[in-house]
Amino acid sequence: MVDMERPAAKRRRISSSAADMQSAIAQPGSIKINVTGAYIIDHEEDDGSHTTGSSPSSSPDVDETTYQHHKRDIRLPNHTSLVSHVAADIGGSLAKVVYFSRENGNAESGGRLHFLSFETDKIDDCIEYLRTLQTRHKQTNGAKATELRVQATGGGAYKFYDRIKHRLGVDVQREDEMECLIKGLDFFISEIPSEVFTYDDTDAENAVTYQDTRSDVYPYLLVNIGSGVSMIKVSGPSQFQRIGGTSLGGGTLWGLLSLLTGARNFDDMLAMTDKGDNTAVDLLVGDIYGEGMGYEKIGLSEKTIASSFGKVLKRKREAERRAEDGGGLGNGEMARSKLQVDGAADEAGDSAGLVGDGRMFKAEDISRSLLYAISNNIGQIAYLQSEKHDLQRIYFGGSFIRGHQQTIHTLSYAIKFWSKGLKQAYFLRHEGYLGAVGAFLKRKPVNWGRRGSVDFVEV
Amino acid sequence: MVDMERPAAKRRRISSSAADMQSAIAQPGSIKINVTGAYIIDHEEDDGSHTTGSSPSSSPDVDETTYQHHKRDIRLPNHTSLVSHVAADIGGSLAKVVYFSRENGNAESGGRLHFLSFETDKIDDCIEYLRTLQTRHKQTNGAKATELRVQATGGGAYKFYDRIKHRLGVDVQREDEMECLIKGLDFFISEIPSEVFTYDDTDAENAVTYQDTRSDVYPYLLVNIGSGVSMIKVSGPSQFQRIGGTSLGGGTLWGLLSLLTGARNFDDMLAMTDKGDNTAVDLLVGDIYGEGMGYEKIGLSEKTIASSFGKVLKRKREAERRAEDGGGLGNGEMARSKLQVDGAADEAGDSAGLVGDGRMFKAEDISRSLLYAISNNIGQIAYLQSEKHDLQRIYFGGSFIRGHQQTIHTLSYAIKFWSKGLKQAYFLRHEGYLGAVGAFLKRKPVNWGRRGSVDFVEV
Repeated sequence: MVDMERPAAKRRRISSSAADMQSAIAQPGSIKINVTGAYIIDHEEDDGSHTTGSSPSSSPDVDETTYQHHKRDIRLPNHTSLVSHVAADIGGSLAKVVYFSRENGNAESGGRLHFLSFETDKIDDCIEYLRTLQTRHKQTNGAKATELRVQATGGGAYKFYDRIKHRLGVDVQREDEMECLIKGLDFFISEIPSEVFTYDDTDAENAVTYQDTRSDVYPYLLVNIGSGVSMIKVSGPSQFQRIGGTSLGGGTLWGLLSLLTGARNFDDMLAMTDKGDNTAVDLLVGDIYGEGMGYEKIGLSEKTIASSFGKVLKRKREAERRAEDGGGLGNGEMARSKLQVDGAADEAGDSAGLVGDGRMFKAEDISRSLLYAISNNIGQIAYLQSEKHDLQRIYFGGSFIRGHQQTIHTLSYAIKFWSKGLKQAYFLRHEGYLGAVGAFLKRKPVNWGRRGSVDFVEV
Repeated sequence: MVDMERPAAKRRRISSSAADMQSAIAQPGSIKINVTGAYIIDHEEDDGSHTTGSSPSSSPDVDETTYQHHKRDIRLPNHTSLVSHVAADIGGSLAKVVYFSRENGNAESGGRLHFLSFETDKIDDCIEYLRTLQTRHKQTNGAKATELRVQATGGGAYKFYDRIKHRLGVDVQREDEMECLIKGLDFFISEIPSEVFTYDDTDAENAVTYQDTRSDVYPYLLVNIGSGVSMIKVSGPSQFQRIGGTSLGGGTLWGLLSLLTGARNFDDMLAMTDKGDNTAVDLLVGDIYGEGMGYEKIGLSEKTIASSFGKVLKRKREAERRAEDGGGLGNGEMARSKLQVDGAADEAGDSAGLVGDGRMFKAEDISRSLLYAISNNIGQIAYLQSEKHDLQRIYFGGSFIRGHQQTIHTLSYAIKFWSKGLKQAYFLRHEGYLGAVGAFLKRKPVNWGRRGSVDFVEV
């Protein structure tokens, strides 16, 4: 499956700049990275020319099933000098890696940033991947090249510090998690065109609107949704404060869904939500008031979710009563076992993918309800924090979002609903990599241009 | 089981005031209710003298398993006139009933308010109970007495309006839900001593502090937690506005727990939470950062819950890997069935009450985690709303709380934590009956004294 010959053959053609290398050896932290003309490139749109020569995903040492390669690289066509570090942001559920590679193995073509994620449970796979990058770096740039350094952030930068250092045999530079998040977000907002977008599906044709780069965004709120949720007020390029958060985040969705549906990975769970109908388990205002009356008085629509999962107990008890009435069983246990059959037949007509005692509920419906509940809740708390701290712009980042349309829709809608249209949610195409990119940039922050604040490196 | 003779025998001794009755017939809405000397009485402390004669719970028509009688009545020792109405607040999960009965069947001893709840699913039992009260009312007060009227509120007052009216053959007066909640709460705060309390278990001996009645409480926030949660800003005796809410309420806890643990009633679920350890499923800050390092930087304690249920997927995958490594099974299905045995043995040593694919998690731990998650979340949103609307006092009401210590602790702690000790959570001993009492009072609100605002009826 893995072609060991081709990369080796191509590798010979790589010409690294001797001047770069000298500079790297003399001043390992002073490599300039040129962001002029940076743009996002989808793998699908890719010409494929870089992958064989420069991606270590073809390494025989790394099992390709252990990580996910983000489908969008960032091309840096004008960066020609050597980069001798990688960055890892190791969170509660996922470890995110950012690294740079030469384009076509050729310094003059510039290069690109790659984005990968591993499950933190499989941190050894991640470390192994970093080791492969290290080996590749040495092969490409020669034995005299400086060692590939590791910039690490997130809780795992502390928890796995010794393990990473020992396994790679290099210094691991730990960076503050919040600083990295903010630095990464600022970089995406101010340097990468079409990275940031808004979402509004009232115009289905043009639901996504990409934003130009800009630097006049302070103060703003960053809502970073990983296993848990952190909310950070950002007042300026390096002025920020964690103002709150919630423990109801990605870990809650994934944890509960794995218990309720048996699904084992995030993408399967998200795929289920797309097919579900939350009104099968959620209690709507219309369910409480009856249809067409009363609820306008309290300013709620008939379709408003009054209680997430509020129909579950109700439906279970109804089915239980039906089973008891129909079967005339006095014995509760017998009535319940009957219910399992009745329920499945009555409610879904198909027992595959049904969950819950009684098999009454579809895994898809449960998934959609829970996604709504958690996204809505994060949206509401974000809005209330933005009010308390007088922040107009709300950026959502973190691995929870995964570019998933319904999640983005729900978060965006919640901000619009609660703010009565006065505030706007912003999203990012590399939403899971803020911390990792921030850690990558921290290596020599002064060389990464912020428009109007520091000099760019021009070729 | 039900003694039909005794109530009938006692009933003969009831002497109702002819003047009251005349007044009731002439002006059915003008009955004065006297709250002088009102106090709360626990059934346990009761002398038992009222129950046989005046409680319809001994009625042969009503199945006593269909409702819960709240263990605390409110004694009205000075109310001697006839009351010819009852009130029902019919919500998404529960229907709450408030009615008045004479003490010892004797007008001169005053009477008491009773508090009952039915599951809304069993609304017919509730209506049947009201019919029994109606019959009793007629028997007690004679055929000439005015019919027992029904004051109804909550969504079910609309949804079941026709059914109640038809079954009871009387006019059903519908009252606005929010108005009733606020009227009921104001009554409890200003008229019933030791109804309101605060909770702080830093002093375990005196965790509960009962409050005196008072009327200088405006503006305040009412957080009413039923199936869903409503948050209402109250600026004065009848000035209020629904400012928000969340769909993550009692229906969510009970719905998810019934799916996850198979428990079938609220009290069983709450009993489980008392025995659980949430750290078995919740991801703590210390779990992400490792112990003793790093997290102080972001202002969080090692014990802070970073992600509710954030350990679930992690533990399932670990166990899966152990099963695969240990058994050397290539087949995922086989590995998983092995896991079910391994998991139960490794994780709990006892398969009773274990839930989830793999039977790795104790129902008690899951219950506690979910109770924490939902209570914390309500507490945080309540705090943020109180900030936005500049409200110092936060009252928690609704059937979710059920006098449950951990729930009260978590809500109280959340308010203290988020407000840095500046705000206080208040609770009520009849927290589930705000709307029902409000509807009861709406019958002739002017006769219910508010200290300093309207005249009291003196005996």
